[in-house]
Amino acid sequence: MRPSGRAPDEMRAITIETGFTKHAEGSCLISFGDTRVLCTASIEERLPPWLRGKGEGWVTGEYSMLPRATHTRGSREAARGKQSGRTQEIQRLIGRSLRAVVDLTKLGERQITLDCDVIQADGGTRTASISGAWVALRLAVNTLLEQKLISEDPITQKVAAISCGVYQGTPVLDLDYDEDSNADADANFVLIGDGNIAEVQATAEGATYDEEALLRLLRLARMGCDGIFAAQEKAVS
Amino acid sequence: MRPSGRAPDEMRAITIETGFTKHAEGSCLISFGDTRVLCTASIEERLPPWLRGKGEGWVTGEYSMLPRATHTRGSREAARGKQSGRTQEIQRLIGRSLRAVVDLTKLGERQITLDCDVIQADGGTRTASISGAWVALRLAVNTLLEQKLISEDPITQKVAAISCGVYQGTPVLDLDYDEDSNADADANFVLIGDGNIAEVQATAEGATYDEEALLRLLRLARMGCDGIFAAQEKAVS
Amino acid sequence: MRPSGRAPDEMRAITIETGFTKHAEGSCLISFGDTRVLCTASIEERLPPWLRGKGEGWVTGEYSMLPRATHTRGSREAARGKQSGRTQEIQRLIGRSLRAVVDLTKLGERQITLDCDVIQADGGTRTASISGAWVALRLAVNTLLEQKLISEDPITQKVAAISCGVYQGTPVLDLDYDEDSNADADANFVLIGDGNIAEVQATAEGATYDEEALLRLLRLARMGCDGIFAAQEKAVS
Amino acid sequence: MRPSGRAPDEMRAITIETGFTKHAEGSCLISFGDTRVLCTASIEERLPPWLRGKGEGWVTGEYSMLPRATHTRGSREAARGKQSGRTQEIQRLIGRSLRAVVDLTKLGERQITLDCDVIQADGGTRTASISGAWVALRLAVNTLLEQKLISEDPITQKVAAISCGVYQGTPVLDLDYDEDSNADADANFVLIGDGNIAEVQATAEGATYDEEALLRLLRLARMGCDGIFAAQEKAVS
Amino acid sequence: MRPSGRAPDEMRAITIETGFTKHAEGSCLISFGDTRVLCTASIEERLPPWLRGKGEGWVTGEYSMLPRATHTRGSREAARGKQSGRTQEIQRLIGRSLRAVVDLTKLGERQITLDCDVIQADGGTRTASISGAWVALRLAVNTLLEQKLISEDPITQKVAAISCGVYQGTPVLDLDYDEDSNADADANFVLIGDGNIAEVQATAEGATYDEEALLRLLRLARMGCDGIFAAQEKAVS
Amino acid sequence: MRPSGRAPDEMRAITIETGFTKHAEGSCLISFGDTRVLCTASIEERLPPWLRGKGEGWVTGEYSMLPRATHTRGSREAARGKQSGRTQEIQRLIGRSLRAVVDLTKLGERQITLDCDVIQADGGTRTASISGAWVALRLAVNTLLEQKLISEDPITQKVAAISCGVYQGTPVLDLDYDEDSNADADANFVLIGDGNIAEVQATAEGATYDEEALLRLLRLARMGCDGIFAAQEKAVS
Repeated sequence: MRPSGRAPDEMRAITIETGFTKHAEGSCLISFGDTRVLCTASIEERLPPWLRGKGEGWVTGEYSMLPRATHTRGSREAARGKQSGRTQEIQRLIGRSLRAVVDLTKLGERQITLDCDVIQADGGTRTASISGAWVALRLAVNTLLEQKLISEDPITQKVAAISCGVYQGTPVLDLDYDEDSNADADANFVLIGDGNIAEVQATAEGATYDEEALLRLLRLARMGCDGIFAAQEKAVS
Repeated sequence: MRPSGRAPDEMRAITIETGFTKHAEGSCLISFGDTRVLCTASIEERLPPWLRGKGEGWVTGEYSMLPRATHTRGSREAARGKQSGRTQEIQRLIGRSLRAVVDLTKLGERQITLDCDVIQADGGTRTASISGAWVALRLAVNTLLEQKLISEDPITQKVAAISCGVYQGTPVLDLDYDEDSNADADANFVLIGDGNIAEVQATAEGATYDEEALLRLLRLARMGCDGIFAAQEKAVS
Repeated sequence: MRPSGRAPDEMRAITIETGFTKHAEGSCLISFGDTRVLCTASIEERLPPWLRGKGEGWVTGEYSMLPRATHTRGSREAARGKQSGRTQEIQRLIGRSLRAVVDLTKLGERQITLDCDVIQADGGTRTASISGAWVALRLAVNTLLEQKLISEDPITQKVAAISCGVYQGTPVLDLDYDEDSNADADANFVLIGDGNIAEVQATAEGATYDEEALLRLLRLARMGCDGIFAAQEKAVS
Repeated sequence: MRPSGRAPDEMRAITIETGFTKHAEGSCLISFGDTRVLCTASIEERLPPWLRGKGEGWVTGEYSMLPRATHTRGSREAARGKQSGRTQEIQRLIGRSLRAVVDLTKLGERQITLDCDVIQADGGTRTASISGAWVALRLAVNTLLEQKLISEDPITQKVAAISCGVYQGTPVLDLDYDEDSNADADANFVLIGDGNIAEVQATAEGATYDEEALLRLLRLARMGCDGIFAAQEKAVS
Repeated sequence: MRPSGRAPDEMRAITIETGFTKHAEGSCLISFGDTRVLCTASIEERLPPWLRGKGEGWVTGEYSMLPRATHTRGSREAARGKQSGRTQEIQRLIGRSLRAVVDLTKLGERQITLDCDVIQADGGTRTASISGAWVALRLAVNTLLEQKLISEDPITQKVAAISCGVYQGTPVLDLDYDEDSNADADANFVLIGDGNIAEVQATAEGATYDEEALLRLLRLARMGCDGIFAAQEKAVS
Repeated sequence: MRPSGRAPDEMRAITIETGFTKHAEGSCLISFGDTRVLCTASIEERLPPWLRGKGEGWVTGEYSMLPRATHTRGSREAARGKQSGRTQEIQRLIGRSLRAVVDLTKLGERQITLDCDVIQADGGTRTASISGAWVALRLAVNTLLEQKLISEDPITQKVAAISCGVYQGTPVLDLDYDEDSNADADANFVLIGDGNIAEVQATAEGATYDEEALLRLLRLARMGCDGIFAAQEKAVS
């Protein structure tokens, strides 16, 4: 029995509120239940030095938790003077996931930064970040297309992400904090609109797992991402 | 004529949405027009080492802007590896301002941290932070009183803050970004519910100012803070 | 056709030279072809503060590349003043992977640090690190058992890791640098001696992949890890 | 009664020794009683990248306390690896105060850095710094004029600063350390030679204050700055 | 011919002004010609954690150049966020040199920190620092003896330091900046009052040197240190 | 009697294994007994900005100890976020020593970095580093000559380094860890093939020393370096 009373294949409510901030070229506040992440897409008409002159653009991600997004207050990374390994791992994942659905040559020599700031955390912050970042990116690219700064749409697919895990022996979809902190295994799947996979990260926490469990988690992830794709579609149209 | 069309002594709309996040002991989203700051109060039952054993508590503030709170994206302080001088100056001001209305001996040996994270910036982020932090603090202290962890209310007064400035020769109340970036002088006032002053910071930007201008700005600030006190009262009751 | 002329399911030669350094409680130099990693296990009879008093131990990993382990010299992380996101990601993976096969309660209140320093890099440094770290750990734990500092063996299984990928459309085992830098997808598998999985990290680089590809990569990984398990067995006996 | 026996409106002795170091384009050792600050002005014929190409110059300040300038030794900021919030706040104030009396367009594309290093501290280090920095700046700009590197004097006014405060209920001028650490309120005023104000920073420490107190402190500050202006005049002529 | 017109074995004028700052337990401003260093000795009745409980004390040194001590302004180490290799090398040398003449067991469990801050630089700042630090240390230890906090004098000898070098083929004593920046070889000698050597650091800059040159430099250093010993003696008596 | 049973003028076995890594333009693993250092020379066809445009090249050194090169594990400098003073001192010495035997104008506008990474430490790591770095440099420069990228050999001499010390009253050659940690004085000599001296660093640890001791240490160093020169010659031919 899940702490929340959900069925093993039941996601939390997903809501996506677009235009949450006015300055960003694209933004949304995405919620997976009590997990809420503000995602903004910022277009800059310049690239970092090592990417210049190749005739293509770049998409990157940054991630942070507000200090009191969590049950107990965490120290502020800016005050500590460095980003944790976990933060860096997540921002690298966000960037890779979004680049998997962008044709950088069609973007031109500009950079889009996806900032994912967790306002409130209850498990699944990185997957909500990726799913919301796609919405912010879609909205920002729309402005480029509308302003005729680019002629072809560089976004090739939707991308969404969801966590699954083995909780008390049962594969379950969309772990919340109570499940996440007690799961035997914890997997994050990043899936593409056409059914393909961009990333699997499946980690044994309390107990190692077998191939069958991996496949069952992947199937749950497909169900979850179908729901996210629908919410994304609704949000951007 | 102000860019926003406001009268010289006219504030922007103030809204305070309490309980914006669920984990913090107190929280609100405060808006001064398009400036929106998430303020949370976190109670910790321990003090930093240098404050222990004095039989009293501590109240401190932290401040940050989300990278895309502003017109153009700013770099993330956690990624740069240090907080700017501006950020540190503001968090010191937030802490001082709130401590001006707290009797630390009645708080007991615990710390309350007021995190002020700017979601969207349009001028006046530090004054909105102080004004919202008081609401978060009030709510957090209420939980201590309700749980009988403390017996006497350590909060002695309300505290609010507002910026005023000399814009095109005219003293005006509650500068927005357009005014702030072109003001001759820029002043932040932190006022107490009983009419006293906790802090004045009045800085010549384009032109120095005289004593009369200082007094006119202070009078505008009194009008503004009266409005904020009323909004605070409504929010916490 | 692979650049090295290897068959798709053919690993590079694996060698493990134990006792490579004299001070560490356990050490080996592991080679996967031209990739060479020095792995040492250091036992310390104390824990970091946040782990003390729980009656159990800790196993952690650190990772670094010597500046000229690679084709062109990379800057030294100690000189830059911080570890890259990639380095931190890998050291977290090393620690998790080894902890998956250690019963920390049987280890007692001590810490074992697995330092993996890449002497020469030609693809697969993180998987060689994990595979070699197990050998260093096994040797170090043997000394604890011999000295009767612990009575029961805390190591429950072997653990090994291997990279696989989709190279020019074909799933291949044990990517070298030439393949790694051009693969469509790149997967690292951490497998346990009993056939279970400790970690899967499968990332689309040039092209997303489907479930069948994931399974074929997993099967290649099983073949590869069987070879590593045999080499580990031989090294420690 | 003040600890020093001074009258409420009595300043400490001010001395300004110009040419204290030989390399700087301008320098002085300024003393407010036992507070002694070495101020140097360094002219550099280049600007930081973000200020280039605007046809104007820049004036900036840096501030530091020698570790044993104080009663007990403080740790060295260079050894800690960062400047404190207090240090940054003061150097920002020094820069702003001096820029308030410089016409940057007349300075040409060069930068003048005012280094204020506190040799001995007894209260009022930031105000002594500003007052001494003006002397160093005046001397450095004189060399530019003498060498005909600039044709018009970019310095428009004198600028001086003094601290005042409410000590045991009485407004007093020029706080020393004993007063500063026990004041109810502490105010720093930066005043211009023509009587105008460049900056007011008035902070409640032990007790909030009212408008009348603010005005009385400002009047004390005017008296104090008149004395400093006279000392500056004497020093540079 | 030396740029200064000095004879090869002629030192610059040495002056030592004791009691230059009032808070430090011992202090002096030492000058070797135009090189001026403020040396303070601070006694703290506690030790860093790794030195506690051994029944003995510690003597350590810190060193810094004010940004405009030099011909052109150098950036402030506190602002850059780290101390240079040169700075660290010099502070390690200062600490070692002074510890060579202190019996730490007679000092008791306290630490004396020798801060050497270069006010003006013209070559030989590290040797002036060591020579002045001894004076500050002597004065600080005198206060311990006077206050009967220690019963036996822990200082066993005088210590002084001087630079020598091969300039245009000739061994010369006490290099100034013009010589130092063009010397073929540059040597720093730290000598003890009884004629023994605490440290030799002799470095080829433009040309390597032979044993005879080393010995001639050592003899010059003996002459120089005799002069410094006399100046130290006069300063502390 | 030396702990190792060696005669006072007896060195440990020296071995130099060239070509230890395949990517570097020059590399060797040098051993002084149980001290083993991997030295690589990396040629880069560009200079740091401050060295460009002078028509000459640069040679620099970097140094690190693997965390478990020592008896007990040391923390990793990259994890601590900065290099220790000792590390910086050693890398500056390595660079200076090698530059003493290179004609930078013949090198052309390129940089050679000598990375010295200590695999195992038993005293004398800095002197083994310098001695091995020369071998790596020689091999790297040979490739430049072979590829006709330079026409004249920029290396003018061999350079080698050895530590000597006063151990229990007796001057001894080539200190190992047991001796080094108990020596009265510890000296490092960097000598040139023609008999000249590049650097002497002779430090009193437990007791100061006299001129005669310095000369005896230098004579031991000559004997030691003759042995190293022979080993270098054999390694590169």
